[in-house]
Amino acid sequence: MITVEEARALLFDLVRVLPSEDVPLTEAAGRVLARDVAATRDQPPFAASSMDGYAVKAAEVEMHAMFKVIGEAAAGHGFDGSVGAGQAVRIFTGAPVPDGADFVVIQEDVERRGNLITVKDDPGTKTNIRPAGVDFTKGTTIEAPRLLRAEDVALMAAMNIASVPVTRIPDIALISTGDELVMPGEDPGPNQIIASNTFGLKALLEGFGAHVRILPIARDTVSSLETAFSLAEGADMVVTIGGASVGDHDLVGQVAAGLGMERSFYKIRMRPGKPLMAGRMGDAAMVGLPGNPVSAMVCGYLFLAPMVRRMLGLEETLPPFRRARLAAPIDKNGPREHYMRAVLDDNGLRACADQDSSLLSVLARANALLVRPPEDPARDSGDEVLYLPL
Amino acid sequence: MITVEEARALLFDLVRVLPSEDVPLTEAAGRVLARDVAATRDQPPFAASSMDGYAVKAAEVEMHAMFKVIGEAAAGHGFDGSVGAGQAVRIFTGAPVPDGADFVVIQEDVERRGNLITVKDDPGTKTNIRPAGVDFTKGTTIEAPRLLRAEDVALMAAMNIASVPVTRIPDIALISTGDELVMPGEDPGPNQIIASNTFGLKALLEGFGAHVRILPIARDTVSSLETAFSLAEGADMVVTIGGASVGDHDLVGQVAAGLGMERSFYKIRMRPGKPLMAGRMGDAAMVGLPGNPVSAMVCGYLFLAPMVRRMLGLEETLPPFRRARLAAPIDKNGPREHYMRAVLDDNGLRACADQDSSLLSVLARANALLVRPPEDPARDSGDEVLYLPL
Repeated sequence: MITVEEARALLFDLVRVLPSEDVPLTEAAGRVLARDVAATRDQPPFAASSMDGYAVKAAEVEMHAMFKVIGEAAAGHGFDGSVGAGQAVRIFTGAPVPDGADFVVIQEDVERRGNLITVKDDPGTKTNIRPAGVDFTKGTTIEAPRLLRAEDVALMAAMNIASVPVTRIPDIALISTGDELVMPGEDPGPNQIIASNTFGLKALLEGFGAHVRILPIARDTVSSLETAFSLAEGADMVVTIGGASVGDHDLVGQVAAGLGMERSFYKIRMRPGKPLMAGRMGDAAMVGLPGNPVSAMVCGYLFLAPMVRRMLGLEETLPPFRRARLAAPIDKNGPREHYMRAVLDDNGLRACADQDSSLLSVLARANALLVRPPEDPARDSGDEVLYLPL
Repeated sequence: MITVEEARALLFDLVRVLPSEDVPLTEAAGRVLARDVAATRDQPPFAASSMDGYAVKAAEVEMHAMFKVIGEAAAGHGFDGSVGAGQAVRIFTGAPVPDGADFVVIQEDVERRGNLITVKDDPGTKTNIRPAGVDFTKGTTIEAPRLLRAEDVALMAAMNIASVPVTRIPDIALISTGDELVMPGEDPGPNQIIASNTFGLKALLEGFGAHVRILPIARDTVSSLETAFSLAEGADMVVTIGGASVGDHDLVGQVAAGLGMERSFYKIRMRPGKPLMAGRMGDAAMVGLPGNPVSAMVCGYLFLAPMVRRMLGLEETLPPFRRARLAAPIDKNGPREHYMRAVLDDNGLRACADQDSSLLSVLARANALLVRPPEDPARDSGDEVLYLPL
């Protein structure tokens, strides 16, 4: 069996960075910038006042100096003339500073009578002028790849970038398998349960920037599985859930192989999630997740989300592991890497009592996965450990 | 001037928790649960095998014990009969444990010849059976309010909750004001700049769960502002940006008052963002943000996002401030609370060099707002400070 790290490397080999597409600026947040974009102008495009006041010549500014107000400059409306000796132009925040002026006396520092102003308070040495291009100049780039935040969207707007090249959204098809499953809202028979994995994984992967299709449940027959795979046509990644254990009823691997799946690996040295399977199926990556709900979700965080980030072209593809101190001791670990459901609060990180991989209620209460390396010894309260925030 | 904390309390008075609506489970992630929901069944609904193996009577399990296989139980297909003395039922993971059996010997521990199995390895004491209802029982609730994560969606699916009561999405109308503004993609005149605040704020607030409409830019005239306000009709919150400073060109407050806005406050003791204005306008909260791009975005994080969370019914409405150590010293602060753009990395938190509130390029490089209380003394490298992650 391979390690989690080896599995992730093999999974990365199954996907490629997707091509780019242009989207309107209003749809760019949360997408990944696919190539560098450049400002089409300087910001500000002119020397601009940063305050409301009077634009004058700096050399003339001193206490009790008097100026004659010869015009006005507002945001959007500059003053066409030039400011001469002894002259001032009334100016507002964001307005272009008129020719001849190189200082703005703020209005709180002057007294105005008719068209005359007198400097009454120490105007200081700050010019209150933002030079042209102080924020950015034409050609300033935002570098790809970059997961675009609200701040980037604001900056691109100011740069007059109305259309943004972003990586296409990965299309993921989810197939849950098993005769025991019915969809939420249906009326399950006595031996049946509700399909939950596809719903949890759809929410999880869409949070990472993918588009996820939930396909009809595949029954434990060759023809039902073949139908499900055919409906996945066009997906960048096909994920099956269930049917990947060791039982006699495990048809997924067999049917996938029959449809041309080249297997990359089967089974990894981890808990939960040991019976993970992966391969390449035509143009798509194919991943077979175990059917226990917690196993499926943990594999979603550890493997599928990094694959999505890789398809999006992001450089940081690994899950964002962090460090915290234990709030309670934990037993030694066995030979497999273990991802324990845990709760992080002000007291530290505490592993949940029941780690059975069927317990969705425990997973929903958890906010962290505590990472245990193989053969990790018992740990005490206060020991520093690695975890993944959920 | 009031403090940031006082302003937030007054802003909270302007909004109410919105009514709820039912959405399909696939649309529930990221929404806020509006009232408790309850499981409609036990999970598992029956005692279920957690392994592939043979269901037998626990009292008969010991090394070298032999059993006759009388049938099979698979997930979705139970065994209808009962397991008697000396009998076993082949069973697979997730299958109902047949009547009469209370132990599953895993298949690795037995040798099978025809219909006979012999226990060949120590079967241990673990029954490998998940009792009915061990995950949750009928009536187990998920408590509102709760921001629904992928894990909650999976759990609700398993509970057979196909339709989820969530708080309606807040509808926010954004109006940028100023003769100097043109929309991204347009060709600005020599005195003009591109409207960026509405685009940044839309991305920011949609990330917090709101729906945001960008209205046409309002010019610095009464009629243009009145038209913009009329287009905001039906919004839960109307946000203007710009025109809230002290200049002669500030019409927003005047026009809003003419339309019946009852002012709550104007100006707060903070940097950036001092000229913040707020009030109630018919059924909507009205907030006037300053026009400097960084001020507008900082006010978005400190005030608008908490108001959105409050409208969604969340209990934790405050921004999620955290603590970090300074990587470089900072000067003493003045009389206003200061939210400095800063970069947090492995070395700690470092305030950006230029804190001018017009600099979007600095904001886009920052990943934190360093919080400075009024009159905060100079701080050294290594001092612990408060910050808000961006």
